Amino acid sequence: MSGYEFDADTAVEATGDGSFSATVTDRWSAVGGGPNGGYLLGIGLRALRTAMPKSHPDPLVVSAYFLRPGSVSDAELHTEVVRTGRRIATGEVRLLQGGKETVRVLANFADLGTSAGRTEVRGEPPKLPAPDECVDLTGGKPIPGLTIADRYDYRFAEPLGWPTGNPTGEPAMEFWMRFADGRDADTLSLAPMVDAAAPAVMELGEFVSSTVELTVHVRARPAPGWLACRVFTRYLIDGYHEEDFEIWDATGSLVAQGRQLAILPPPS
Amino acid sequence: MSGYEFDADTAVEATGDGSFSATVTDRWSAVGGGPNGGYLLGIGLRALRTAMPKSHPDPLVVSAYFLRPGSVSDAELHTEVVRTGRRIATGEVRLLQGGKETVRVLANFADLGTSAGRTEVRGEPPKLPAPDECVDLTGGKPIPGLTIADRYDYRFAEPLGWPTGNPTGEPAMEFWMRFADGRDADTLSLAPMVDAAAPAVMELGEFVSSTVELTVHVRARPAPGWLACRVFTRYLIDGYHEEDFEIWDATGSLVAQGRQLAILPPPS
Repeated sequence: MSGYEFDADTAVEATGDGSFSATVTDRWSAVGGGPNGGYLLGIGLRALRTAMPKSHPDPLVVSAYFLRPGSVSDAELHTEVVRTGRRIATGEVRLLQGGKETVRVLANFADLGTSAGRTEVRGEPPKLPAPDECVDLTGGKPIPGLTIADRYDYRFAEPLGWPTGNPTGEPAMEFWMRFADGRDADTLSLAPMVDAAAPAVMELGEFVSSTVELTVHVRARPAPGWLACRVFTRYLIDGYHEEDFEIWDATGSLVAQGRQLAILPPPS
Repeated sequence: MSGYEFDADTAVEATGDGSFSATVTDRWSAVGGGPNGGYLLGIGLRALRTAMPKSHPDPLVVSAYFLRPGSVSDAELHTEVVRTGRRIATGEVRLLQGGKETVRVLANFADLGTSAGRTEVRGEPPKLPAPDECVDLTGGKPIPGLTIADRYDYRFAEPLGWPTGNPTGEPAMEFWMRFADGRDADTLSLAPMVDAAAPAVMELGEFVSSTVELTVHVRARPAPGWLACRVFTRYLIDGYHEEDFEIWDATGSLVAQGRQLAILPPPS
Protein backbone atom coordinates (compact mmCIF):
# COMPACT_ATOMS: atom_id res chain seq x y z
CA MET A 1 0.00 0.00 0.00
CA SER A 2 1.29 3.45 -0.88
CA GLY A 3 1.66 6.13 1.73
CA TYR A 4 -0.34 8.62 -0.31
CA GLU A 5 -3.44 10.25 1.15
CA PHE A 6 -5.74 9.44 -1.76
CA ASP A 7 -4.83 5.77 -1.63
CA ALA A 8 -5.14 5.54 2.16
CA ASP A 9 -8.48 7.38 2.27
CA THR A 10 -10.11 5.43 -0.58
CA ALA A 11 -8.99 2.01 0.72
CA VAL A 12 -11.68 -0.67 0.57
CA GLU A 13 -11.84 -4.09 2.19
CA ALA A 14 -13.63 -7.00 0.54
CA THR A 15 -16.45 -8.42 2.64
CA GLY A 16 -17.57 -11.11 0.16
CA ASP A 17 -20.01 -11.40 -2.75
CA GLY A 18 -18.68 -8.26 -4.45
CA SER A 19 -19.22 -6.10 -1.38
CA PHE A 20 -16.69 -3.92 0.37
CA SER A 21 -16.33 -1.75 3.47
CA ALA A 22 -14.58 1.62 3.63
CA THR A 23 -14.12 4.59 5.92
CA VAL A 24 -15.05 8.07 4.69
CA THR A 25 -12.53 10.40 6.32
CA ASP A 26 -12.82 14.12 7.18
CA ARG A 27 -9.84 15.01 4.99
CA TRP A 28 -11.76 15.69 1.73
CA SER A 29 -14.55 17.98 2.89
CA ALA A 30 -15.95 21.30 1.72
CA VAL A 31 -16.94 24.03 4.18
CA GLY A 32 -20.28 22.93 5.64
CA GLY A 33 -20.71 20.43 2.84
CA GLY A 34 -19.38 17.18 4.20
CA PRO A 35 -17.26 14.83 2.11
CA ASN A 36 -16.68 15.95 -1.47
CA GLY A 37 -18.72 14.02 -4.02
CA GLY A 38 -15.65 13.28 -6.10
CA TYR A 39 -14.00 11.72 -3.05
CA LEU A 40 -17.00 9.42 -2.49
CA LEU A 41 -16.81 8.58 -6.20
CA GLY A 42 -13.12 7.72 -5.71
CA ILE A 43 -14.02 5.18 -3.02
CA GLY A 44 -16.71 3.73 -5.27
CA LEU A 45 -14.33 3.42 -8.23
CA ARG A 46 -11.70 1.82 -6.02
CA ALA A 47 -14.17 -0.90 -5.01
CA LEU A 48 -15.50 -1.33 -8.54
CA ARG A 49 -12.03 -1.57 -10.09
CA THR A 50 -11.21 -4.30 -7.57
CA ALA A 51 -14.28 -6.24 -8.71
CA MET A 52 -13.78 -5.74 -12.46
CA PRO A 53 -11.62 -8.06 -14.59
CA LYS A 54 -7.91 -7.23 -14.48
CA SER A 55 -7.92 -7.09 -18.29
CA HIS A 56 -9.86 -3.78 -18.07
CA PRO A 57 -7.94 -1.73 -15.47
CA ASP A 58 -8.86 1.83 -16.48
CA PRO A 59 -12.15 3.62 -15.77
CA LEU A 60 -13.16 4.85 -19.25
CA VAL A 61 -16.60 6.41 -18.66
CA VAL A 62 -17.96 7.03 -15.18
CA SER A 63 -21.47 8.32 -14.38
CA ALA A 64 -22.09 9.16 -10.72
CA TYR A 65 -25.58 9.98 -9.46
CA PHE A 66 -25.45 11.72 -6.08
CA LEU A 67 -28.52 10.74 -4.06
CA ARG A 68 -27.82 12.17 -0.60
CA PRO A 69 -25.00 14.08 1.10
CA GLY A 70 -22.28 11.76 2.38
CA SER A 71 -21.00 11.76 5.94
CA VAL A 72 -17.70 11.18 7.72
CA SER A 73 -18.38 7.61 8.83
CA ASP A 74 -18.22 4.01 7.64
CA ALA A 75 -19.51 3.05 4.22
CA GLU A 76 -20.49 -0.19 2.55
CA LEU A 77 -20.17 -0.76 -1.18
CA HIS A 78 -21.94 -3.24 -3.40
CA THR A 79 -20.51 -3.91 -6.85
CA GLU A 80 -21.91 -5.68 -9.89
CA VAL A 81 -19.96 -6.71 -12.96
CA VAL A 82 -22.65 -6.12 -15.57
CA ARG A 83 -20.87 -7.29 -18.70
CA THR A 84 -17.32 -7.99 -19.84
CA GLY A 85 -16.67 -7.49 -23.54
CA ARG A 86 -13.42 -7.56 -25.43
CA ARG A 87 -12.75 -3.82 -25.41
CA ILE A 88 -15.20 -2.60 -22.75
CA ALA A 89 -16.37 -3.97 -19.41
CA THR A 90 -19.33 -2.40 -17.60
CA GLY A 91 -19.96 -2.36 -13.88
CA GLU A 92 -22.06 -0.67 -11.23
CA VAL A 93 -21.35 0.25 -7.64
CA ARG A 94 -23.62 1.55 -4.89
CA LEU A 95 -22.15 3.33 -1.86
CA LEU A 96 -24.28 3.23 1.29
CA GLN A 97 -23.83 5.01 4.61
CA GLY A 98 -26.05 4.25 7.62
CA GLY A 99 -27.98 1.85 5.40
CA LYS A 100 -28.93 4.59 2.93
CA GLU A 101 -27.61 4.81 -0.61
CA THR A 102 -25.50 7.92 -1.10
CA VAL A 103 -24.02 7.52 -4.57
CA ARG A 104 -24.71 5.14 -7.47
CA VAL A 105 -22.13 4.80 -10.21
CA LEU A 106 -22.34 3.16 -13.63
CA ALA A 107 -18.98 2.81 -15.37
CA ASN A 108 -17.18 1.35 -18.35
CA PHE A 109 -13.65 0.06 -17.94
CA ALA A 110 -11.04 -0.55 -20.64
CA ASP A 111 -7.30 -0.96 -21.07
CA LEU A 112 -6.08 2.48 -22.11
CA GLY A 113 -2.52 1.17 -22.26
CA THR A 114 -3.33 -0.78 -25.42
CA SER A 115 -5.83 1.53 -27.14
CA ALA A 116 -4.86 2.38 -30.69
CA GLY A 117 -6.61 4.15 -33.52
CA ARG A 118 -7.07 7.45 -35.25
CA THR A 119 -6.39 10.70 -33.40
CA GLU A 120 -7.80 14.10 -34.42
CA VAL A 121 -7.70 16.86 -31.82
CA ARG A 122 -9.68 20.10 -32.28
CA GLY A 123 -8.85 21.80 -28.96
CA GLU A 124 -5.83 23.03 -27.03
CA PRO A 125 -4.67 22.86 -23.42
CA PRO A 126 -5.15 25.97 -21.27
CA LYS A 127 -2.44 28.57 -21.83
CA LEU A 128 -1.11 29.09 -18.31
CA PRO A 129 2.12 30.54 -16.95
CA ALA A 130 4.37 27.97 -15.26
CA PRO A 131 2.90 26.79 -11.93
CA ASP A 132 5.48 28.68 -9.84
CA GLU A 133 4.52 31.90 -11.64
CA CYS A 134 0.84 31.38 -10.79
CA VAL A 135 -1.15 32.30 -7.67
CA ASP A 136 -1.75 29.95 -4.75
CA LEU A 137 -5.05 31.35 -3.48
CA THR A 138 -4.70 29.89 0.00
CA GLY A 139 -1.07 30.97 0.34
CA GLY A 140 -0.49 27.48 1.69
CA LYS A 141 -2.63 28.20 4.77
CA PRO A 142 -5.43 25.79 5.68
CA ILE A 143 -9.00 27.13 5.43
CA PRO A 144 -11.06 25.82 8.40
CA GLY A 145 -13.47 23.11 7.23
CA LEU A 146 -12.18 23.12 3.65
CA THR A 147 -9.96 20.10 4.19
CA ILE A 148 -10.04 19.09 0.52
CA ALA A 149 -7.96 22.19 -0.22
CA ASP A 150 -5.17 20.61 1.85
CA ARG A 151 -5.21 17.48 -0.31
CA TYR A 152 -4.77 19.27 -3.64
CA ASP A 153 -2.55 22.10 -4.82
CA TYR A 154 -4.17 24.66 -7.12
CA ARG A 155 -2.34 27.40 -9.04
CA PHE A 156 -4.36 30.10 -10.82
CA ALA A 157 -3.29 32.58 -13.43
CA GLU A 158 -4.60 36.00 -12.46
CA PRO A 159 -6.98 37.66 -12.60
CA LEU A 160 -9.77 35.77 -10.90
CA GLY A 161 -12.78 37.67 -9.62
CA TRP A 162 -14.49 35.72 -6.88
CA PRO A 163 -11.60 35.40 -4.39
CA THR A 164 -11.60 39.18 -3.92
CA GLY A 165 -15.39 39.50 -3.88
CA ASN A 166 -15.62 40.73 -7.47
CA PRO A 167 -16.92 37.89 -9.65
CA THR A 168 -16.01 38.45 -13.28
CA GLY A 169 -19.46 37.47 -14.57
CA GLU A 170 -17.84 34.90 -16.87
CA PRO A 171 -18.25 31.38 -15.46
CA ALA A 172 -14.90 29.98 -16.58
CA MET A 173 -11.52 29.35 -14.97
CA GLU A 174 -8.19 27.81 -15.92
CA PHE A 175 -5.65 26.54 -13.40
CA TRP A 176 -3.04 23.95 -12.48
CA MET A 177 -3.89 21.11 -10.11
CA ARG A 178 -2.10 18.19 -8.44
CA PHE A 179 -2.20 16.11 -5.29
CA ALA A 180 -0.48 18.06 -2.47
CA ASP A 181 1.47 15.03 -1.24
CA GLY A 182 3.17 14.38 -4.57
CA ARG A 183 1.03 11.45 -5.71
CA ASP A 184 0.79 11.54 -9.48
CA ALA A 185 -2.64 11.30 -11.07
CA ASP A 186 -3.75 8.05 -12.66
CA THR A 187 -6.91 6.96 -14.41
CA LEU A 188 -8.49 6.11 -11.04
CA SER A 189 -8.01 9.61 -9.63
CA LEU A 190 -9.02 11.69 -12.67
CA ALA A 191 -12.79 11.35 -12.13
CA PRO A 192 -12.52 12.45 -8.48
CA MET A 193 -10.32 15.39 -9.53
CA VAL A 194 -12.98 16.64 -11.94
CA ASP A 195 -15.18 17.35 -8.90
CA ALA A 196 -12.45 18.73 -6.63
CA ALA A 197 -12.14 22.35 -7.74
CA ALA A 198 -14.13 25.53 -7.20
CA PRO A 199 -17.24 25.61 -9.41
CA ALA A 200 -17.21 27.95 -12.38
CA VAL A 201 -20.46 29.61 -11.23
CA MET A 202 -18.47 31.28 -8.44
CA GLU A 203 -17.56 33.80 -11.15
CA LEU A 204 -21.32 34.49 -11.35
CA GLY A 205 -21.37 35.19 -7.62
CA GLU A 206 -22.95 31.81 -6.82
CA PHE A 207 -21.18 30.11 -3.94
CA VAL A 208 -23.47 27.14 -3.37
CA SER A 209 -24.22 24.58 -6.07
CA SER A 210 -25.12 20.90 -5.64
CA THR A 211 -23.97 18.27 -8.12
CA VAL A 212 -26.75 15.85 -8.99
CA GLU A 213 -24.89 13.92 -11.70
CA LEU A 214 -21.31 13.79 -12.95
CA THR A 215 -20.07 11.92 -16.02
CA VAL A 216 -16.36 11.73 -16.78
CA HIS A 217 -14.68 10.38 -19.90
CA VAL A 218 -11.12 9.28 -19.16
CA ARG A 219 -9.27 9.71 -22.42
CA ALA A 220 -5.69 8.64 -21.62
CA ARG A 221 -3.34 7.66 -18.82
CA PRO A 222 -1.89 10.93 -17.50
CA ALA A 223 1.84 11.69 -17.50
CA PRO A 224 3.39 12.56 -14.09
CA GLY A 225 3.32 16.16 -12.93
CA TRP A 226 0.95 19.12 -12.81
CA LEU A 227 -2.40 18.93 -14.63
CA ALA A 228 -3.76 21.91 -16.58
CA CYS A 229 -7.50 22.29 -15.97
CA ARG A 230 -10.30 24.24 -17.63
CA VAL A 231 -13.74 24.54 -16.08
CA PHE A 232 -16.69 26.39 -17.58
CA THR A 233 -20.46 26.69 -17.51
CA ARG A 234 -22.35 27.91 -20.56
CA TYR A 235 -25.98 27.35 -19.65
CA LEU A 236 -27.51 28.28 -16.30
CA ILE A 237 -31.26 27.85 -16.91
CA ASP A 238 -33.87 28.17 -14.16
CA GLY A 239 -31.27 27.35 -11.52
CA TYR A 240 -29.89 24.24 -13.26
CA HIS A 241 -26.45 24.38 -14.87
CA GLU A 242 -23.97 22.09 -16.53
CA GLU A 243 -20.28 22.36 -15.69
CA ASP A 244 -17.68 21.16 -18.16
CA PHE A 245 -14.19 20.21 -17.01
CA GLU A 246 -11.11 19.34 -19.04
CA ILE A 247 -7.87 17.94 -17.62
CA TRP A 248 -4.70 18.07 -19.71
CA ASP A 249 -1.47 16.44 -18.58
CA ALA A 250 2.04 17.87 -18.52
CA THR A 251 2.72 16.64 -22.07
CA GLY A 252 -0.26 18.59 -23.42
CA SER A 253 -2.59 15.59 -23.87
CA LEU A 254 -6.27 15.67 -22.95
CA VAL A 255 -6.68 13.01 -20.25
CA ALA A 256 -10.20 13.62 -18.93
CA GLN A 257 -13.36 15.40 -19.99
CA GLY A 258 -16.15 15.79 -17.45
CA ARG A 259 -19.62 17.24 -17.40
CA GLN A 260 -21.95 17.54 -14.45
CA LEU A 261 -25.45 18.81 -13.88
CA ALA A 262 -25.79 20.90 -10.74
CA ILE A 263 -28.52 22.97 -9.10
CA LEU A 264 -28.40 26.28 -7.29
CA PRO A 265 -30.42 26.52 -4.07
CA PRO A 266 -34.12 27.23 -4.72
CA PRO A 267 -35.02 30.93 -4.97
CA SER A 268 -36.11 32.24 -1.55
CA MET B 1 -52.96 6.39 -26.88
CA SER B 2 -51.75 8.75 -29.59
CA GLY B 3 -51.44 7.63 -33.16
CA TYR B 4 -47.84 8.80 -33.40
CA GLU B 5 -45.09 6.38 -34.35
CA PHE B 6 -42.78 7.18 -31.43
CA ASP B 7 -45.55 6.59 -28.91
CA ALA B 8 -46.75 3.38 -30.58
CA ASP B 9 -43.23 1.94 -30.94
CA THR B 10 -42.09 2.73 -27.38
CA ALA B 11 -45.27 1.41 -25.73
CA VAL B 12 -44.67 -0.69 -22.63
CA GLU B 13 -46.99 -3.00 -20.73
CA ALA B 14 -46.67 -3.47 -16.98
CA THR B 15 -46.04 -7.09 -15.97
CA GLY B 16 -45.82 -6.49 -12.21
CA ASP B 17 -43.15 -5.62 -9.63
CA GLY B 18 -41.86 -2.68 -11.67
CA SER B 19 -41.28 -4.81 -14.77
CA PHE B 20 -42.60 -4.20 -18.26
CA SER B 21 -42.72 -5.85 -21.68
CA ALA B 22 -42.24 -4.08 -25.00
CA THR B 23 -41.74 -4.82 -28.69
CA VAL B 24 -38.68 -3.43 -30.49
CA THR B 25 -39.86 -2.68 -34.02
CA ASP B 26 -37.89 -2.50 -37.27
CA ARG B 27 -38.90 1.12 -37.88
CA TRP B 28 -35.96 2.81 -36.08
CA SER B 29 -32.96 0.98 -37.52
CA ALA B 30 -29.67 2.01 -39.05
CA VAL B 31 -28.25 0.28 -42.13
CA GLY B 32 -26.83 -3.02 -40.89
CA GLY B 33 -26.90 -1.74 -37.34
CA GLY B 34 -30.19 -2.96 -35.93
CA PRO B 35 -32.39 -0.79 -33.73
CA ASN B 36 -30.98 2.66 -32.97
CA GLY B 37 -29.62 3.02 -29.44
CA GLY B 38 -31.65 6.15 -28.84
CA TYR B 39 -34.81 4.24 -29.74
CA LEU B 40 -33.99 1.53 -27.19
CA LEU B 41 -33.32 4.31 -24.68
CA GLY B 42 -36.76 5.75 -25.51
CA ILE B 43 -38.42 2.44 -24.59
CA GLY B 44 -36.41 2.32 -21.38
CA LEU B 45 -37.37 5.88 -20.43
CA ARG B 46 -41.00 5.17 -21.21
CA ALA B 47 -40.99 2.26 -18.74
CA LEU B 48 -39.01 4.19 -16.15
CA ARG B 49 -41.23 7.26 -16.32
CA THR B 50 -44.24 5.00 -15.76
CA ALA B 51 -42.59 3.66 -12.61
CA MET B 52 -41.41 7.04 -11.23
CA PRO B 53 -43.62 9.26 -9.06
CA LYS B 54 -46.01 11.46 -11.05
CA SER B 55 -44.61 14.49 -9.20
CA HIS B 56 -41.39 14.16 -11.25
CA PRO B 57 -42.59 13.73 -14.87
CA ASP B 58 -39.57 15.00 -16.83
CA PRO B 59 -36.34 13.09 -17.47
CA LEU B 60 -33.69 15.61 -16.31
CA VAL B 61 -30.44 13.66 -16.66
CA VAL B 62 -30.22 10.34 -18.47
CA SER B 63 -27.14 8.11 -18.69
CA ALA B 64 -27.44 5.12 -21.01
CA TYR B 65 -24.78 2.41 -21.11
CA PHE B 66 -25.06 0.30 -24.25
CA LEU B 67 -23.98 -3.26 -23.48
CA ARG B 68 -24.92 -5.21 -26.60
CA PRO B 69 -26.57 -4.47 -29.95
CA GLY B 70 -30.36 -4.60 -29.71
CA SER B 71 -32.56 -6.69 -31.99
CA VAL B 72 -36.01 -6.44 -33.57
CA SER B 73 -37.84 -8.65 -31.09
CA ASP B 74 -39.54 -8.60 -27.71
CA ALA B 75 -37.93 -6.89 -24.75
CA GLU B 76 -38.40 -7.01 -21.01
CA LEU B 77 -37.67 -4.03 -18.78
CA HIS B 78 -36.95 -3.93 -15.07
CA THR B 79 -37.21 -0.61 -13.25
CA GLU B 80 -36.08 0.52 -9.82
CA VAL B 81 -37.09 3.74 -8.10
CA VAL B 82 -33.82 4.47 -6.32
CA ARG B 83 -34.73 7.60 -4.39
CA THR B 84 -37.44 10.27 -4.49
CA GLY B 85 -36.40 13.67 -3.18
CA ARG B 86 -38.26 16.95 -3.27
CA ARG B 87 -36.69 18.33 -6.46
CA ILE B 88 -35.06 15.21 -7.95
CA ALA B 89 -36.09 11.55 -8.19
CA THR B 90 -33.60 8.92 -9.33
CA GLY B 91 -34.35 5.65 -11.07
CA GLU B 92 -32.74 2.86 -13.02
CA VAL B 93 -34.00 0.68 -15.83
CA ARG B 94 -32.52 -2.40 -17.49
CA LEU B 95 -33.67 -3.48 -20.95
CA LEU B 96 -33.19 -7.16 -21.77
CA GLN B 97 -33.69 -9.05 -25.02
CA GLY B 98 -33.46 -12.84 -25.20
CA GLY B 99 -32.56 -12.82 -21.52
CA LYS B 100 -29.47 -10.66 -22.08
CA GLU B 101 -29.14 -7.09 -20.87
CA THR B 102 -28.85 -4.69 -23.80
CA VAL B 103 -29.00 -1.24 -22.21
CA ARG B 104 -28.80 -0.01 -18.63
CA VAL B 105 -30.01 3.50 -17.83
CA LEU B 106 -29.58 5.63 -14.72
CA ALA B 107 -31.72 8.78 -14.70
CA ASN B 108 -32.88 11.71 -12.64
CA PHE B 109 -36.44 13.00 -13.04
CA ALA B 110 -37.82 16.40 -12.06
CA ASP B 111 -40.74 18.71 -12.80
CA LEU B 112 -39.41 21.13 -15.41
CA GLY B 113 -42.79 22.86 -15.51
CA THR B 114 -42.17 24.36 -12.08
CA SER B 115 -38.40 24.95 -12.16
CA ALA B 116 -37.45 28.51 -11.34
CA GLY B 117 -34.17 30.25 -10.69
CA ARG B 118 -31.40 32.27 -12.23
CA THR B 119 -30.76 32.06 -15.98
CA GLU B 120 -27.45 33.01 -17.66
CA VAL B 121 -26.89 31.76 -21.20
CA ARG B 122 -23.44 31.91 -22.85
CA GLY B 123 -24.26 30.25 -26.16
CA GLU B 124 -26.54 30.72 -29.15
CA PRO B 125 -28.74 28.49 -31.28
CA PRO B 126 -27.39 27.36 -34.67
CA LYS B 127 -27.81 30.02 -37.37
CA LEU B 128 -29.75 28.13 -40.03
CA PRO B 129 -31.88 29.24 -42.96
CA ALA B 130 -35.59 28.45 -42.58
CA PRO B 131 -36.27 24.69 -42.84
CA ASP B 132 -37.89 24.98 -46.27
CA GLU B 133 -34.77 26.75 -47.58
CA CYS B 134 -32.55 23.88 -46.34
CA VAL B 135 -31.60 20.58 -47.96
CA ASP B 136 -33.44 17.31 -47.42
CA LEU B 137 -30.59 14.85 -48.04
CA THR B 138 -32.87 11.92 -48.81
CA GLY B 139 -35.13 13.96 -51.07
CA GLY B 140 -37.97 12.28 -49.22
CA LYS B 141 -37.02 8.85 -50.64
CA PRO B 142 -36.52 5.93 -48.23
CA ILE B 143 -32.99 4.51 -47.94
CA PRO B 144 -33.18 0.69 -47.72
CA GLY B 145 -32.45 -0.46 -44.16
CA LEU B 146 -32.19 3.07 -42.78
CA THR B 147 -35.73 3.06 -41.44
CA ILE B 148 -34.96 5.63 -38.73
CA ALA B 149 -34.57 8.21 -41.51
CA ASP B 150 -38.28 7.69 -42.27
CA ARG B 151 -39.23 8.52 -38.69
CA TYR B 152 -37.45 11.88 -38.55
CA ASP B 153 -37.17 14.81 -40.93
CA TYR B 154 -33.73 16.42 -41.23
CA ARG B 155 -32.93 19.67 -43.01
CA PHE B 156 -29.32 20.70 -43.56
CA ALA B 157 -27.85 24.01 -44.52
CA GLU B 158 -25.31 23.47 -47.27
CA PRO B 159 -22.53 22.70 -47.70
CA LEU B 160 -22.03 19.29 -46.11
CA GLY B 161 -19.14 17.14 -47.23
CA TRP B 162 -19.85 13.49 -46.51
CA PRO B 163 -23.08 13.04 -48.51
CA THR B 164 -21.16 13.69 -51.72
CA GLY B 165 -18.12 11.65 -50.70
CA ASN B 166 -16.04 14.69 -49.78
CA PRO B 167 -15.86 14.90 -45.97
CA THR B 168 -15.00 18.45 -44.87
CA GLY B 169 -12.47 17.29 -42.26
CA GLU B 170 -14.30 19.30 -39.60
CA PRO B 171 -16.44 17.00 -37.42
CA ALA B 172 -19.37 19.36 -36.88
CA MET B 173 -22.85 19.79 -38.38
CA GLU B 174 -25.90 21.99 -37.81
CA PHE B 175 -29.41 21.06 -38.97
CA TRP B 176 -33.13 21.07 -38.29
CA MET B 177 -34.88 17.96 -36.98
CA ARG B 178 -38.43 16.86 -36.14
CA PHE B 179 -40.59 13.74 -36.09
CA ALA B 180 -41.77 13.00 -39.64
CA ASP B 181 -45.35 12.29 -38.57
CA GLY B 182 -45.86 15.67 -36.94
CA ARG B 183 -45.47 14.59 -33.32
CA ASP B 184 -43.93 17.45 -31.37
CA ALA B 185 -40.92 16.73 -29.19
CA ASP B 186 -41.35 16.49 -25.44
CA THR B 187 -38.94 15.84 -22.59
CA LEU B 188 -39.36 12.07 -23.11
CA SER B 189 -38.27 12.17 -26.75
CA LEU B 190 -35.31 14.58 -26.48
CA ALA B 191 -32.82 11.98 -25.19
CA PRO B 192 -33.66 9.54 -28.03
CA MET B 193 -33.35 12.38 -30.56
CA VAL B 194 -29.79 13.14 -29.40
CA ASP B 195 -28.79 9.74 -30.78
CA ALA B 196 -30.87 9.84 -33.95
CA ALA B 197 -28.73 11.87 -36.34
CA ALA B 198 -25.64 11.20 -38.44
CA PRO B 199 -22.47 11.22 -36.31
CA ALA B 200 -20.17 14.24 -36.63
CA VAL B 201 -17.19 11.98 -37.41
CA MET B 202 -18.74 11.32 -40.85
CA GLU B 203 -17.12 14.65 -41.76
CA LEU B 204 -13.81 12.92 -40.90
CA GLY B 205 -14.68 10.14 -43.35
CA GLU B 206 -15.59 7.72 -40.55
CA PHE B 207 -18.88 5.98 -41.29
CA VAL B 208 -18.98 3.45 -38.45
CA SER B 209 -18.87 4.46 -34.81
CA SER B 210 -20.40 2.64 -31.82
CA THR B 211 -21.87 4.51 -28.88
CA VAL B 212 -20.80 3.00 -25.57
CA GLU B 213 -22.34 5.64 -23.29
CA LEU B 214 -24.71 8.56 -23.78
CA THR B 215 -25.63 11.16 -21.16
CA VAL B 216 -28.30 13.75 -21.90
CA HIS B 217 -29.25 16.78 -19.81
CA VAL B 218 -32.82 17.86 -20.55
CA ARG B 219 -32.88 21.57 -19.85
CA ALA B 220 -36.45 22.63 -20.63
CA ARG B 221 -39.75 21.46 -22.11
CA PRO B 222 -39.50 22.12 -25.87
CA ALA B 223 -41.91 24.38 -27.74
CA PRO B 224 -43.76 22.79 -30.69
CA GLY B 225 -42.12 22.82 -34.11
CA TRP B 226 -38.72 22.22 -35.69
CA LEU B 227 -35.66 21.75 -33.46
CA ALA B 228 -32.31 23.33 -34.33
CA CYS B 229 -29.48 20.90 -33.66
CA ARG B 230 -25.70 21.20 -33.39
CA VAL B 231 -23.45 18.14 -33.24
CA PHE B 232 -19.67 18.19 -32.91
CA THR B 233 -16.67 16.12 -31.90
CA ARG B 234 -13.51 17.83 -30.65
CA TYR B 235 -11.37 14.94 -29.42
CA LEU B 236 -10.85 11.72 -31.35
CA ILE B 237 -8.04 10.01 -29.42
CA ASP B 238 -6.81 6.48 -30.18
CA GLY B 239 -10.15 5.63 -31.79
CA TYR B 240 -12.31 6.90 -28.93
CA HIS B 241 -14.29 10.10 -29.38
CA GLU B 242 -16.87 12.17 -27.58
CA GLU B 243 -19.82 13.62 -29.48
CA ASP B 244 -21.61 16.68 -28.15
CA PHE B 245 -25.16 17.45 -29.19
CA GLU B 246 -27.31 20.51 -28.53
CA ILE B 247 -31.01 20.81 -29.27
CA TRP B 248 -32.65 24.26 -29.39
CA ASP B 249 -36.39 24.70 -29.78
CA ALA B 250 -38.30 26.99 -32.14
CA THR B 251 -38.27 29.83 -29.59
CA GLY B 252 -34.46 29.78 -29.42
CA SER B 253 -34.20 28.02 -26.03
CA LEU B 254 -31.68 25.27 -25.31
CA VAL B 255 -33.76 22.20 -24.45
CA ALA B 256 -31.20 19.38 -24.39
CA GLN B 257 -27.46 18.95 -24.16
CA GLY B 258 -25.99 15.53 -24.81
CA ARG B 259 -22.56 13.95 -24.79
CA GLN B 260 -21.64 10.42 -25.75
CA LEU B 261 -18.47 8.37 -25.84
CA ALA B 262 -18.13 6.29 -28.97
CA ILE B 263 -15.48 4.04 -30.52
CA LEU B 264 -14.35 3.58 -34.07
CA PRO B 265 -13.79 -0.01 -35.23
CA PRO B 266 -10.38 -1.37 -34.19
CA PRO B 267 -7.56 -0.65 -36.68
CA SER B 268 -7.19 -3.59 -39.07
